[in-house]
Amino acid sequence: MTEAIQTEQVSELIDKAKKAKAAASSMAKLTTDQKNRALHQIASALVREQEFILAKNDKDIVAGRNSGMTESLLDRLRLDEGRLQDMAEALVQLTGLADPVGEVLEKWERPNGLVISSIRVPIGVIGMIYEARPNVTVDAASLCLKTGNAVVLRGSSTAIHSNKALVRVIHQALSETAVPAEAVQLIEDTRRETATAMFKLNEYLDVLIPRGGAKLIQTVVANATVPVLETGAGNCHIYIDETADLEMAIDIAVNAKTQRPSVCNACETILIQETWAARHLPELLAVLQEKGVVVHGDPVVQQADGVIPAIEEDWETEYLGLEVAMKTVADVDGAIAHINTYGTRHSEAIISAAADHAERFLAEVDAAAVYHNASTRFTDGFEFGFGAEIGISTQKLHARGPMGLPALTSMKYVIKGNGQVK
Amino acid sequence: MTEAIQTEQVSELIDKAKKAKAAASSMAKLTTDQKNRALHQIASALVREQEFILAKNDKDIVAGRNSGMTESLLDRLRLDEGRLQDMAEALVQLTGLADPVGEVLEKWERPNGLVISSIRVPIGVIGMIYEARPNVTVDAASLCLKTGNAVVLRGSSTAIHSNKALVRVIHQALSETAVPAEAVQLIEDTRRETATAMFKLNEYLDVLIPRGGAKLIQTVVANATVPVLETGAGNCHIYIDETADLEMAIDIAVNAKTQRPSVCNACETILIQETWAARHLPELLAVLQEKGVVVHGDPVVQQADGVIPAIEEDWETEYLGLEVAMKTVADVDGAIAHINTYGTRHSEAIISAAADHAERFLAEVDAAAVYHNASTRFTDGFEFGFGAEIGISTQKLHARGPMGLPALTSMKYVIKGNGQVK
Repeated sequence: MTEAIQTEQVSELIDKAKKAKAAASSMAKLTTDQKNRALHQIASALVREQEFILAKNDKDIVAGRNSGMTESLLDRLRLDEGRLQDMAEALVQLTGLADPVGEVLEKWERPNGLVISSIRVPIGVIGMIYEARPNVTVDAASLCLKTGNAVVLRGSSTAIHSNKALVRVIHQALSETAVPAEAVQLIEDTRRETATAMFKLNEYLDVLIPRGGAKLIQTVVANATVPVLETGAGNCHIYIDETADLEMAIDIAVNAKTQRPSVCNACETILIQETWAARHLPELLAVLQEKGVVVHGDPVVQQADGVIPAIEEDWETEYLGLEVAMKTVADVDGAIAHINTYGTRHSEAIISAAADHAERFLAEVDAAAVYHNASTRFTDGFEFGFGAEIGISTQKLHARGPMGLPALTSMKYVIKGNGQVK
Repeated sequence: MTEAIQTEQVSELIDKAKKAKAAASSMAKLTTDQKNRALHQIASALVREQEFILAKNDKDIVAGRNSGMTESLLDRLRLDEGRLQDMAEALVQLTGLADPVGEVLEKWERPNGLVISSIRVPIGVIGMIYEARPNVTVDAASLCLKTGNAVVLRGSSTAIHSNKALVRVIHQALSETAVPAEAVQLIEDTRRETATAMFKLNEYLDVLIPRGGAKLIQTVVANATVPVLETGAGNCHIYIDETADLEMAIDIAVNAKTQRPSVCNACETILIQETWAARHLPELLAVLQEKGVVVHGDPVVQQADGVIPAIEEDWETEYLGLEVAMKTVADVDGAIAHINTYGTRHSEAIISAAADHAERFLAEVDAAAVYHNASTRFTDGFEFGFGAEIGISTQKLHARGPMGLPALTSMKYVIKGNGQVK
């Protein structure tokens, strides 16, 4: 055990992490029915106890407003009847999804008669570190419950009253079910020390999932020795190839940039093959500017009206708003090189009528999701048909891209013999 | 970039890691044939250049002997014609294995017409940290090459002349092939700093694989922020149930303990259901003791001749030799509880004629491989039929148990549309 986690401040963390680990072994034995019944109980309790929850949420809102929290942050923090209802509905929907635990992934027989199966099992204990969105508390707890994992939740101090209320309601609901209430643990001490102690709590936590802004995620990745499922930033590109259909290219670029600019799969840089640009740049710019998009352009793009000169930093920036960087490139190789240099390995698209260009792009761009003739906005567990989403992984191990329930599972080999020795 | 890796000592590391990362993108484009031709070239070169390699290896052997290295360590360090021939044969065998890169894992169509495929791709850059076995140099380089990954090798100072010679021969062989020689990098500065700098080299390394003793692996796991594939220690158990067939139980326990006691899938503790022990303990002890096994027993087992009393530490010890801990338990629950407390989640076996006891054990024991009526010694990539083995993972993310070539791959989603926007 490291020095950091022997301090008195984190005794709550150690105590709750131990309890979660103890609960994890009974979680692994639950049937799908038992888990679904518990999800239904939580759904009912959220609605039944809404007065209690909303009163506690109001304390966070008042404190947030007094401390000068911005309206958009207050909006993320706020719960109301409708949002609790949505949370309850999401829980009910989760009961309808297939339980990945117990699934036989492969089964084969060896020449010596051993029969080997690989079977999905829960991971164990998931540590969640997140910001001031109380909905993550219920979302994380329910996804972990469905996949037979225990969870240690460490939310933000600004949402602490909401989180305590929600976890109290969850515990109450679970007390009437086969799921041990101790499988859901909330760390109430929200000082920085409890988060940093979680980074190195390899003894009790099997994985850490940070959910929030790029800074939070980078801090966890750079400091955690517990394995991290990195749900990272998206500096996504649309590359418009020489052969791109005009209307399709404009539709996709505008959709990827403007349909919901605050999300990680929105487009941040548009790359344009130079002969296409010579023909169609004004039309593309006009549509973007009409939508209110501020354009940072390279020397070619700058020649158009109302374009700000792009600097090196623009190629790296995730604007998350109505701004876009725009650059001309000689060919698909130039686009691939730019993306592999500046991209965050999230979602990248080529708009092209040339199959060979598309194949090169799809093969050589290094990203979780690569698109031909479609918007990057589809990188999403629901759009992929997974029915639930833990987040979108931008790392390469364990899970990459939109993560459905199976991303919260591990596997074990089960080998049956009749006395085989080596 | 952290302070640790800005020091002058590690500039070789940064330089070589950058080159490996640059080479990784061309590695991903290689065809299976190109990779196999390169493996054949390396195989020939190892045999052709054996005089050069063995002369360099001899320098390590002489230095090792002068510094008082034990005979068993010297044996691991030693190369000879036969061993080089074996290495060359392993390379040729590797060419015969299926290339996982490019494999379509799943493919489906969404209601909006998007066609989504998940496709295996290389991980990128693998960091290998290992001890004084020069064969790991060739083994790691060839497995990474076959799976389209670049590799940064950091071996032990005691094998540095051998490793430099082997990598020189590999580079020479690759220079005549489509595989970039820069995809295989050897860190020649073997001071501790270069290893610890690798732990946090997230910018260039996608994964670290430590290969060696438990201490090396624990140091990497406890300090690395780069994701680690943990190939861990094996404190493996054989549980002999009340209903176990006498002959099968003795055969399996003796095989698991004595057939090759120095390996991670050998048995370290035998758990015996108490009524079975009352009937058969003397027979089991007699066979083990005849094989030269020293037995550390609980109070019941201690009553037999020649048994040393077990202390708490024995339940945690990986003897890796002809010693075993032995304990009686009331039932299968007692066995499961003991294993989940003291086991290292590697390989665990129940010997039983009762199907319900076996099912409980297989479901509730938390380990990479769980066996019914077979020896734990089968936890091995070759015994599983994988044709190659990177190591045996005792962690739960990405890969668990014996790791074949697919463990060195990631995946990407490829999405084809015809203009879809959200």
